[in-house]
Amino acid sequence: MVAVDWGTSSLRGALLDADGAVIEERPFSRGIMTVAPGEFPAVFEACFGDWLARSSGLCLVSGMAGSRQGWMEAPYCACPAGFAEVADQLAWIAAPPRGWRIAMVPGLSCEHTCAGLPAVPDVMRGEEVQIFGAMQLAGLRDGIFVLPGTHSKWATVQHGRITGFRTFMTGEVYALLSQHSILSRTIAADAPFDDAAFAQGLAQAQGQDQGNSGLLHHAFSARTLSLFGRMEAGPLASYLSGLVIGEELRANTASTLHANTEVVLIGSANLTRRYAQALGHQGVASRALGSEATWAGLRALAQAIT
Amino acid sequence: MVAVDWGTSSLRGALLDADGAVIEERPFSRGIMTVAPGEFPAVFEACFGDWLARSSGLCLVSGMAGSRQGWMEAPYCACPAGFAEVADQLAWIAAPPRGWRIAMVPGLSCEHTCAGLPAVPDVMRGEEVQIFGAMQLAGLRDGIFVLPGTHSKWATVQHGRITGFRTFMTGEVYALLSQHSILSRTIAADAPFDDAAFAQGLAQAQGQDQGNSGLLHHAFSARTLSLFGRMEAGPLASYLSGLVIGEELRANTASTLHANTEVVLIGSANLTRRYAQALGHQGVASRALGSEATWAGLRALAQAIT
Repeated sequence: MVAVDWGTSSLRGALLDADGAVIEERPFSRGIMTVAPGEFPAVFEACFGDWLARSSGLCLVSGMAGSRQGWMEAPYCACPAGFAEVADQLAWIAAPPRGWRIAMVPGLSCEHTCAGLPAVPDVMRGEEVQIFGAMQLAGLRDGIFVLPGTHSKWATVQHGRITGFRTFMTGEVYALLSQHSILSRTIAADAPFDDAAFAQGLAQAQGQDQGNSGLLHHAFSARTLSLFGRMEAGPLASYLSGLVIGEELRANTASTLHANTEVVLIGSANLTRRYAQALGHQGVASRALGSEATWAGLRALAQAIT
Repeated sequence: MVAVDWGTSSLRGALLDADGAVIEERPFSRGIMTVAPGEFPAVFEACFGDWLARSSGLCLVSGMAGSRQGWMEAPYCACPAGFAEVADQLAWIAAPPRGWRIAMVPGLSCEHTCAGLPAVPDVMRGEEVQIFGAMQLAGLRDGIFVLPGTHSKWATVQHGRITGFRTFMTGEVYALLSQHSILSRTIAADAPFDDAAFAQGLAQAQGQDQGNSGLLHHAFSARTLSLFGRMEAGPLASYLSGLVIGEELRANTASTLHANTEVVLIGSANLTRRYAQALGHQGVASRALGSEATWAGLRALAQAIT
């Protein structure tokens, strides 16, 4: 089969053999933002047509290609949702070229409720496939799955189904603070990672003395430490990263993490390493997976429908 | 006397009579960012020279004009600090024109300590004068003084001295999220204020159900409420404002506010109204003051040195 992860800013595909092993992988800088309405079939065929001709003709596409702005909308599937629910709601392309079978994988939605307030929806698109793949690869049917990134996701899996999740705008807030706020004047955003400064930021974000004033307060310390000559521009980037990731973890310590939880991290090695360090700082064990989780998830879905 | 508030992006002055009443006020768009090194005396004389010729020749300048990037540096005065400490550390211009007496008012610094971590400095410049003025106008020698803005300040005053304070990057984070994040696509940042949406944001930020996932999580709800058609672009701006201000208050509820605290708010009516509503939501009473606090504070300092 052919497995495709078609996001906002990138497009990646993998040709898998009958056992799910990756025969070939291809990245393209053709995220859905670069594709005009109506052009999706042509872009798809140019990127992966030769693979489909060589394979069973089945292709599952996860990510923003299934959104309203993508190839074809696959409406969000409500949590709790496992393989079966998502497989049932695949959105099949009506008239694909050459009799191929191509489907968009739906994203997931859930509702957060707080007493006395209107329910607030949350969404993911693409991450659900990574979680399904990680469940397969790690042999887990229960656990906490964390996908760090621009919009980090914390998902709870019970009995093989995703029962709920929360989004945190951690990566985006870090980028805004380090590149567009007053802090950008004294931070070297491209400096190499500094372990000690990251750990200091984490500890600051998670401190419990006199309550904890939170990120809106702690972020300003990245300015004052510079102003008073107590931290250089390079380490400041890692310090701020620690403050922001530490804030995300603090929120989850309060609501999601419990003693003896093991967390499965899914993402780039650069990010999962920071989260593993941050979780370790709170005594929480974790294991990390990368892009292999996407292919494993799409293959597991394909098996659920064949 | 002449009282001047010379900030990063704006310059305002007031000519005060012997009783402290404002005879005339003048705003200029000549913040220190627009003034080249060495040009400060000329800009000052062009703006306020006629006033000094008509008055006692005494002028106190608060704000960023006293920073390293300003007219002349007035180093931070360490907390606890009252009128006496600040008056002692005024930085007098060495050779002012025509024998005038012109001084920069120092900002304040304090240190935040958290067990096992290096101390973290905090700073204000200009707000200390507003707090001194508010103490005079409100007849208070103790209390919590809150100055909402780009970088909000929460200061504690005991026995007439500022004993400590915390900065929150609330206004800047609101601007970044509403104008530069993914939320900017669906938020009408210039929409009129919407009371109900603001209250909903506040309540969301302050909810205690299942812990509270904090601003990094709640901010994303401004996207999903739009995505699911549950809130329009106009109210979303006020909702996000409620989320961000609510987060600032939540942090202070944990560390600064106690039952029966009365808070003095100092700032523009647009902001102090929102904070009064937010504080009221937590059962905390407040009163509000505007720019008159700056002139009262500079006058009180002048009296302390004459």
